[in-house]
Amino acid sequence: MGKILRVNMTELTAKYEDVPEKYALLGGRALTSALVADEVPPDAHPLGENNKIVFAPGLLTGTNAPCSGRLSVGAKSPLTGTIKESNAGGITAQKLASLGIKAVVVEGRPPEDGLHLLVINEDGAELVPAGKFAGMGCYALTRGLWQEYGANSGIISIGPAGEMRMALAGVSTNDREGDPGRYAGRGGLGAVMGAKGLKAVLVRTDKTFDAPVKDPEKFAEAVRKLTKALAEHPVTNQALPAYGTAVLINILNEAGGLPTRNFSSGRFEGAAKVSGEAMAEAVAQRGGKGRTGHACHPGCVIRCSNIIPDAKGEVLCTPVEYESTWALGPNCGIDNLDHIAMLNRLCNDVGLDTIETGVTLGVLMEAGVLAFGDGEAAINLLDREARNGTPLGRILGGGSALAGKLFGLTRVPTVKDQGMPAYDPRAVKGMGVTYATSTMGADHTIGYSVTANILKVGGFVDPLQAEGQVDLSRNLQVATAAVDASGLCLFTAFALLDIDYALPSVVDMINAQYGTSLTVDDVFNYGKEILKTERAFNAAAGFTAAHDRLPEFMKLEKLPPHQVTFDVPNEELDTVFNF
Amino acid sequence: MGKILRVNMTELTAKYEDVPEKYALLGGRALTSALVADEVPPDAHPLGENNKIVFAPGLLTGTNAPCSGRLSVGAKSPLTGTIKESNAGGITAQKLASLGIKAVVVEGRPPEDGLHLLVINEDGAELVPAGKFAGMGCYALTRGLWQEYGANSGIISIGPAGEMRMALAGVSTNDREGDPGRYAGRGGLGAVMGAKGLKAVLVRTDKTFDAPVKDPEKFAEAVRKLTKALAEHPVTNQALPAYGTAVLINILNEAGGLPTRNFSSGRFEGAAKVSGEAMAEAVAQRGGKGRTGHACHPGCVIRCSNIIPDAKGEVLCTPVEYESTWALGPNCGIDNLDHIAMLNRLCNDVGLDTIETGVTLGVLMEAGVLAFGDGEAAINLLDREARNGTPLGRILGGGSALAGKLFGLTRVPTVKDQGMPAYDPRAVKGMGVTYATSTMGADHTIGYSVTANILKVGGFVDPLQAEGQVDLSRNLQVATAAVDASGLCLFTAFALLDIDYALPSVVDMINAQYGTSLTVDDVFNYGKEILKTERAFNAAAGFTAAHDRLPEFMKLEKLPPHQVTFDVPNEELDTVFNF
Repeated sequence: MGKILRVNMTELTAKYEDVPEKYALLGGRALTSALVADEVPPDAHPLGENNKIVFAPGLLTGTNAPCSGRLSVGAKSPLTGTIKESNAGGITAQKLASLGIKAVVVEGRPPEDGLHLLVINEDGAELVPAGKFAGMGCYALTRGLWQEYGANSGIISIGPAGEMRMALAGVSTNDREGDPGRYAGRGGLGAVMGAKGLKAVLVRTDKTFDAPVKDPEKFAEAVRKLTKALAEHPVTNQALPAYGTAVLINILNEAGGLPTRNFSSGRFEGAAKVSGEAMAEAVAQRGGKGRTGHACHPGCVIRCSNIIPDAKGEVLCTPVEYESTWALGPNCGIDNLDHIAMLNRLCNDVGLDTIETGVTLGVLMEAGVLAFGDGEAAINLLDREARNGTPLGRILGGGSALAGKLFGLTRVPTVKDQGMPAYDPRAVKGMGVTYATSTMGADHTIGYSVTANILKVGGFVDPLQAEGQVDLSRNLQVATAAVDASGLCLFTAFALLDIDYALPSVVDMINAQYGTSLTVDDVFNYGKEILKTERAFNAAAGFTAAHDRLPEFMKLEKLPPHQVTFDVPNEELDTVFNF
Repeated sequence: MGKILRVNMTELTAKYEDVPEKYALLGGRALTSALVADEVPPDAHPLGENNKIVFAPGLLTGTNAPCSGRLSVGAKSPLTGTIKESNAGGITAQKLASLGIKAVVVEGRPPEDGLHLLVINEDGAELVPAGKFAGMGCYALTRGLWQEYGANSGIISIGPAGEMRMALAGVSTNDREGDPGRYAGRGGLGAVMGAKGLKAVLVRTDKTFDAPVKDPEKFAEAVRKLTKALAEHPVTNQALPAYGTAVLINILNEAGGLPTRNFSSGRFEGAAKVSGEAMAEAVAQRGGKGRTGHACHPGCVIRCSNIIPDAKGEVLCTPVEYESTWALGPNCGIDNLDHIAMLNRLCNDVGLDTIETGVTLGVLMEAGVLAFGDGEAAINLLDREARNGTPLGRILGGGSALAGKLFGLTRVPTVKDQGMPAYDPRAVKGMGVTYATSTMGADHTIGYSVTANILKVGGFVDPLQAEGQVDLSRNLQVATAAVDASGLCLFTAFALLDIDYALPSVVDMINAQYGTSLTVDDVFNYGKEILKTERAFNAAAGFTAAHDRLPEFMKLEKLPPHQVTFDVPNEELDTVFNF
């Protein structure tokens, strides 16, 4: 039933342990959150010796379940001070699961500033000095590590931002082409990895689909069902492979919920120029290595990823997703797709969360440090200031909430010091409930009410009205916690919400793999338990209902074009976790 | 029974109101905290339209009670997010009280960036555009305002830091010589004033001792008693007038509790060079305008203030106090008195809290931004970077907690994001209890256990042991809240704690002035009520027991020379407000 790899950076040891019985059916976010809650004191300094960073593949990861290759990364967050889980695609989680590793737990603190690599081979694991790889951007790092350790390596790594312990540093994994950029971006987990003195984790194996399955026949039947559902749903069979996630740019712009110029408007006049449709057109026109319908890991049937080419057809950035496009584009008043792709590439290379970077850039533009729309100034800020840790680079690296404080602003779109993603909560109110009450600060994936608010997936709840948003967000937060434990990409949720046999097929897979007899209800209870674990950690760390709120300006300033404020009552917000 | 001046910066109006009955016996901190708790929503953004800043003289201010000229400034703090009161000497509070003004309440938010002066004349008040005074340092500002409005003006003002809404901006008042530097420094109240668009408040009157007293004879008798007590106590009759408050440098250094180089040691090898004794020697040698035994306002009989001269005998800085000397000296590894005095002058001019500035400099030195001991680099950082709001200046302006986050450090000596004053809580454990549990973040005056821990005033509690510190801090926090309401300088507390007739004489004064018949017990209950009001505001703003803690490193890192950690148990800390 697998093993846990425990890595102690104080002692520089890496040892395998048996998995305690209580963790046997936990994976992904369920396991990272349980380990952090069990082993990290809630008052630990996020960058200190008592915090731990945990890497865990999902329950289904390493099987041939479609879109099941997510890697969860968990720790106490230096950005929010809460418990944190962030997950990403890429090729590494499947390799870990195929080697029977349920989690890698990294603890302690290096006595000096020595930076190390954790090298996991099929027959063991060891820490080696990072040497020449110290200070490298993730592109050079990934290429260099492949050269030295083989191109079958899955690589979890940080860029200079993580080494400098910047609060918006993310954790990258690579795709099959060797590019970094599959980011567990949110919450500054890269800074925790940096504080542990860990530059990269390599998982050296060709194995990808080698996780054990108890009842292969039953499993195969369930896989067929889920694959069929994903092939039937219009979001996953048409929109995402054709245009990537940035298909949402025009949709949110139309809905008046696309945050523009630091959340001062819900509509951007340059939206069409940076939309998924515009990306697909650029790919078609420029050709070369550009493509849409790219898969971030083996076994993905949705293929929402893309490779955006430069004018010569060379790879400019992969992937350029909706959130990143919005953060580095409309939120900064930038309507130049090449600037956006270059900013995205720089985030991937320096090791910065694209969402937090874009929100912070928007705040700095509001402060007058650079002008809205000035893509070249933004590129310079990332490539020179942030990469080199200049004072302005450090300000960017602290994230949006700190930048807002440093410049004395009130229009600072954050919850629990984390910058808001690409949906203005005044015009997409279910997202406001999610941002406010999430266990991890303003986060979109954790209760993605855009489904019912905008896409009319899983029903419809009017995005401009307060009514119904709390129930919507609650149900999605519960279900998402379970999905984040499964290792399935959240984009399977479109089918899970709309197609009746899809969710049972996932439960069937888990039962077939683990020899259990869970029901759909059990899975919802499983999600609730994850949320309760996370909430308890946060409460012990000092979080109260007063922190489950949107920033004051969203109740005072009306958002064009709908001229709406956020008006879900506090008393309703406080019922989200009544279960 | 006086009046409240309500100033609305949205409407640009200034109107007098009657004092509600419930505020009749509130003054100073009791009144600022009551007004903030009653009128500011706990979730208000500190720099937004819903926060208010309140200026209030103490209950006894404007009488001839000795040392009774304190001005309280209150608001929700942009530094800590808590309710905040900070008080200072200077000449302005007595003028306000003599005009019958119990409080000035400034609310709203200017529609544009227009900066104003509030001019209070004997027959009314008005707002006028700040014009040429915008952007001025407090020295030029105070001189300019005296020239334009008369040298009988008491001036409450902010420097460029407050205009830029920096979280460590303080509020200055001037002394009789016209120098700024009597600072309500802590908690970023200058940023709140800046956010209101208020550059300065002028109180234009010669009146100083004109507050009404119901029973002048009984009052005079009580004044004689308190004056006698102050003249008898060795701290107030010898140490403070001769050496200033920096007499504590050698004492704390000897005790091993003088935080050195960002709280990495409790002893500084250069302490003697920057001690109160060294200052007195410099004053004696250089002569000119230098002096010790200087009074910050009329009626002060302690005269702990000083004027530190430069080599030519001209005024370099007034005053140079213990906390400032420590913050800008030992905490930064700086042992050059002229550098310290210049840094202090720059804080006074730019409008920066000296304590927060020094703690932040220490953190930036820890981060390697400048070197420990490099006074000239520190001067440059204040005079050029902070004054002009460069990125590095903004980092300094955000205070120590943010600087620590931006550079990813764990040794960051703050509570509730406020930097610790000049007593390492591992070696002066009563101060640790006060820092941890204060309603306003790490603060020394709010429960100054240095009395019993170090000075053996009011008994003795071993500073290195955990036992007894909670009781000590609790009693001092209660008594101090009452003192902060009275308008008396906290240095009267040495006599109040040690001389039996001193405290009753203060109660007699209040009874004689207001026609009440309070007892000593009533005064302690009065203090408790203030603390309860402040705690309730903070709880509603999201503060819990988890925030009443020292930073983790103080439990993990031993402080030389005594090799002690902070070990007062959390469960005991949580009993401080059990009354």
